[in-house]
Order: sequence, then C-alpha cells, then structure tokens
Amino acid sequence: MPGLRQDPLTGNWVLIAPERRHRPSYLDVPPMEKLEPGLCPFCEGNEDLTPPEIDAWRPQGGEPNKPGWRVRVFANKFPALRVEGEPVETRSGIFVIHSAIGAHEVVAETPAHDLRMGDTDPRHIREVFLAFKRRIIDLRGDVRLRYIQVFKNSGALAGATIPHPHSQILALPLVPAAVEERLKRARALHTEHGKCFFCGVIQKAVNEKKRLLLEDEEFVVVAPYAPAFPFQLRLMGRTHRCRFEETPDGEFLNLAAALKEAMGMIERGLGDPSYHLILHNAPFEAGCEEFYHWHLDIVPRISGIGGFEHATGCYINPFPPEEAVSELRKF
Amino acid sequence: MPGLRQDPLTGNWVLIAPERRHRPSYLDVPPMEKLEPGLCPFCEGNEDLTPPEIDAWRPQGGEPNKPGWRVRVFANKFPALRVEGEPVETRSGIFVIHSAIGAHEVVAETPAHDLRMGDTDPRHIREVFLAFKRRIIDLRGDVRLRYIQVFKNSGALAGATIPHPHSQILALPLVPAAVEERLKRARALHTEHGKCFFCGVIQKAVNEKKRLLLEDEEFVVVAPYAPAFPFQLRLMGRTHRCRFEETPDGEFLNLAAALKEAMGMIERGLGDPSYHLILHNAPFEAGCEEFYHWHLDIVPRISGIGGFEHATGCYINPFPPEEAVSELRKF
Repeated sequence: MPGLRQDPLTGNWVLIAPERRHRPSYLDVPPMEKLEPGLCPFCEGNEDLTPPEIDAWRPQGGEPNKPGWRVRVFANKFPALRVEGEPVETRSGIFVIHSAIGAHEVVAETPAHDLRMGDTDPRHIREVFLAFKRRIIDLRGDVRLRYIQVFKNSGALAGATIPHPHSQILALPLVPAAVEERLKRARALHTEHGKCFFCGVIQKAVNEKKRLLLEDEEFVVVAPYAPAFPFQLRLMGRTHRCRFEETPDGEFLNLAAALKEAMGMIERGLGDPSYHLILHNAPFEAGCEEFYHWHLDIVPRISGIGGFEHATGCYINPFPPEEAVSELRKF
Repeated sequence: MPGLRQDPLTGNWVLIAPERRHRPSYLDVPPMEKLEPGLCPFCEGNEDLTPPEIDAWRPQGGEPNKPGWRVRVFANKFPALRVEGEPVETRSGIFVIHSAIGAHEVVAETPAHDLRMGDTDPRHIREVFLAFKRRIIDLRGDVRLRYIQVFKNSGALAGATIPHPHSQILALPLVPAAVEERLKRARALHTEHGKCFFCGVIQKAVNEKKRLLLEDEEFVVVAPYAPAFPFQLRLMGRTHRCRFEETPDGEFLNLAAALKEAMGMIERGLGDPSYHLILHNAPFEAGCEEFYHWHLDIVPRISGIGGFEHATGCYINPFPPEEAVSELRKF
C-alpha cells in the first residue's frame, strides 16, 4: 500500500508513507516547544539518537558519530523514502503507483541549537553547501534516482518539527510534476527570448535595481516578479549553470556570504519568521543545460496557505516585491 | 503596481494586493482568539460592520442589512479583487501582469458564531448551497469574468482569520494555471478511457467500497486515490454535470445531508480540525461539458505545507485513503 501515487487530476505524486506517522509530533501542532534542548537529537553529544553518520565536517578530525563535528549528515529517522528496492511503476485502470524508493537525509547545519543563519559565520555556511554538493554527487551515482530536492523548513509555520538548524535532502525515483512544469516553462522562455530566463532576470534586476536586494561579483539576491509569499527572495549565480553541484568550491564562500546577508535582513526585518530554503536544481538527466539555471529560494512563511491558494495555485501577496526589497534594505 | 502577475516559471498567477495588508490579523498568527464574540462582524446584529448585503436567506422576510437572516452574502471588506475596471493584460519583456478585477464575497453560513457543520440542519446547509448557486449565476453575467472559486477556510491552520462559519467566493478575470491543468488532464483521461474520469471513480468506489465513505441515490463521498492531505474526501454527484450551478435545486437537500454527514465524521473523528472546503467547478467558457464533473473537496488541515511540498507539488501523506475511510466510518 505505501508508494508514490499519482493524482490523475493534478499530475502530482503523493507519497503514502504510514511510517511517517510515528514522528514524535504528528498531529501535535506546533510541537516545537515540547523538545527540551538536552533531548534534541541534532545537538552535539546526542549522536546516538540519530541513524549513523553519512557525511560530516570535522575540522579537528575525530571519529564519526561522536562529538567534534561542525556539520553532520545522517538518514532521517522517519524516512519518507527507503533505499532498498526497485523502481517499479504499476498501473491499475485509471491509477498509477510507483515504488517509494529513494533517500531521505538530514543535514544538521551546526552543533548550536538555536543559531540564526544571519548570525552564522559564512565560512561555516560554506561547509553546509559543500555537504549538499557532496551528497548530491554521491546520490547521483544511484541509477534508480532521478531528482533531488534539498530544502530547509525552519519554524513551526514552515512545518519544522525540530528547532535545531537543519536541512533535508530527498532523493526521488521520479521527477515531480511541479519540477517538470518549471523545466518546460524555462525551456519555452529560452526559445521565445533566445536566452536563459534566469540570466535575463539577473541582468534586468542589476540594471533596474528595483527588485535587487544585494549583489557581489558571483551572486545576486533578487525578489521574484510574482512571489507567492511576502518577502520571498531568490539567490542566483551570475555564471549560468544548470546544476548546483557544478558550482566550483571556490564560489561557495560568496554564496554563503550572500545567503547570510539576505537571511540577516529577513530575520531582523521580519522578527525571526518561519521560512523555507528551497534549492531548485536540475534533474539528473541531461538536456536542460542551456535553459535551466539553479537557484535558491528564500521563502518566509508569515502567512498560511488557504483553500483558494491550494485549489488554484493563485496566491494573494499583500507586499509587492519592489516594496519588500526596499523594506529589507533597511535591515 | 497591484494586479495579477504571472510567475513565468510555474504559470501561477499571484495577486499583488497591498490592501489585504490592512486585515485585522495580518502578521498575527493565529489570530482567532483575539476576536471577541460581541465584535464578530459576521454575527447577527453586527450587519453594519460588513459591506452591504448582496444576497440573503430570510425565511421570515425582513429588511436587508438587519437581523433576521439565516444565510447572508456581502462583499469582503478587504477584497483581493475589485469590481471596477477593464481586464487588461500587459507584457513587459519576460513578465506579464493582468488587471486585478473580479469579485470577492463572503457567505456567512449561519448566524450562530460557533456551529459546527456536522451539527447543522441539512435544510440550513441546503440554503448555503443555494446561495452559492445564485451568486455563481449572477456573476456569470459579467463578461469580464472567467472563473469562480468557491471555498471555505475553517480554523487557524486552514488560514481562517474569523472563526464564525463562512465561505468565500472569488471571481477571477482568468482561469488559474492549476485549474487549466485539471481540465487538461480530465480531458486526456476522458479521451484515454472513453468516459468521464469522475464517473469512473464513482463507479469503482461504489463497486469496491474500499474508498467509499457514504452514498445515497444522488451523491457519494469518497477518499481520492492520491490525497495530498490525510483524511481528504471528495463529494460528487452521481449525475454527470460539468457545472455546480446546473445541479437542480431538488438535489440540494441530499447534497447538504452528504456534506453534513461527512463533516460530522471529520469533526468527531479528528477532534474539530481546521479544514478547507473547495468547490472544483468548470470555468465559464463552453467546452468541458463532456469530460469535467464538478466536485467538492473536504480537506482537513492537520499537517502543514513544508518546503518540499511547496517546491515539488509532491505531498507526504502518512494515512492511506483506504485506512482513512475505515477510520472515519467509526464516527
């Protein structure tokens, strides 16, 4: 019965995952306050509360699954997808189900239980990005997998169940419908305008300044033209690259500094809101090198998602992005 | 600057609506507790706190905008869309904006401030549906409008800002991307299988029983095959009709009874969760009569929408729908 079922009407895949029900907080919202700091499974010293380490940054060296790490990657204890099995798609009349194989990993970004990203040393954030890169390159080797979603939920309104700073990596045996749609549209925009849509957005933002939050020689942070959520931001590299993992390590310090700076404005300006970070990356298959361009979305969650938004994909945003940028610049 | 902007990457329209910022509770979450019952603008006796009445059910007669109503429709005080203006689409290079004309109405479903739907007389719920039908038929007369979304947000987790039972009607000058996608897929399913997808789902559910929650001679309530949210339900009429407003008044008592019964199970079984009701109706344009079939989705919101779901459209649901139905049947 578990598996990835496709909604015939939306094309969206729904992961039926009964095991996720055993998470500590399921049906308890918001659960964040319940976790005592000494019992946090992502804190240094509590390594035995998580599955074994997959990757870590240990600047002083040291043994895996012991204290001394600064960034630490391990499997999700309540995985949405399992590593074992074959990718099989089964049709039953009007319905389609795909086996729920894949990977679901957690990246503890720092040993500090309540460090804000805007207060974190960019050299440390750089190591988190490097861990993403290593994990993506490793998971790409699994021929059963087709797409990886790296994301962070921070705060109860963003769906986080543990307050300790952490990201998640979900590797899927299929390309989600929403990702297919982004690729299709990016391809069409490339054809229509004769250049990469994202490169065009960067150029326009840098020239016009009105949706540009910050820039350095390698990265820009802009407010998208039609952001679903108030104060949503997009971090993009000036160099056209389809895939995050193609970014050279030498650019990661500027990447980290740009994220730290943007997140500092969000945290100070909006009072530590809940937020998502969403890494929009290309799927593993070749073919989108010319028209796709990886980007990192910063999505503050100060408002909910109502029935209208869920039904229509049409969001109501009371803060024009041009105004959001000029507000954030004050912080 | 206000207007419906299209996200070039997703196709979704985003309504930039600075006036919505003045809602009493914006940025305060959850705001529900703050509203004192005597000050509720949707309570009987407080008619002067809302814009003028557009439609009402007054079984004993009586004046508009005075007590005595049982169902009451009025414009949203903080409308997302405005009635005045022409539908104009403007392109500026890679970006598209559409004028934010339309209508945004509120349906106060009952004078009782905290009546649950599962405890409401079906003859009363029938009048709410009749009000929807009258409003849709009236708004269809406006040639600038193309689609109407009727929906209800109940509870803070569903995005409601006022606890008094109410639905909303949003009339749009365009067909949202997610609705276009549903139509496209319903058309393709009709072509592939030679019959209406929804009629097929009803037939399968009634035969197999495993996703059927309840049925009478005119309506069924089923759990969809790939529900994004736990305990999500779908109410459909046995008679194939593309548009809600084509449903004869004579069927509305059974429609109301089916909704009351299903909502009672949800409210008792899940302990009064937040929820959406979403009326999936056809757009105004002719052409989808054969393959589309209106339906009402009941979407309990006991879990949040995280970054993974928002990025990919892929939802993680720990409750298989077959199990959700057998659980709900106990209530």
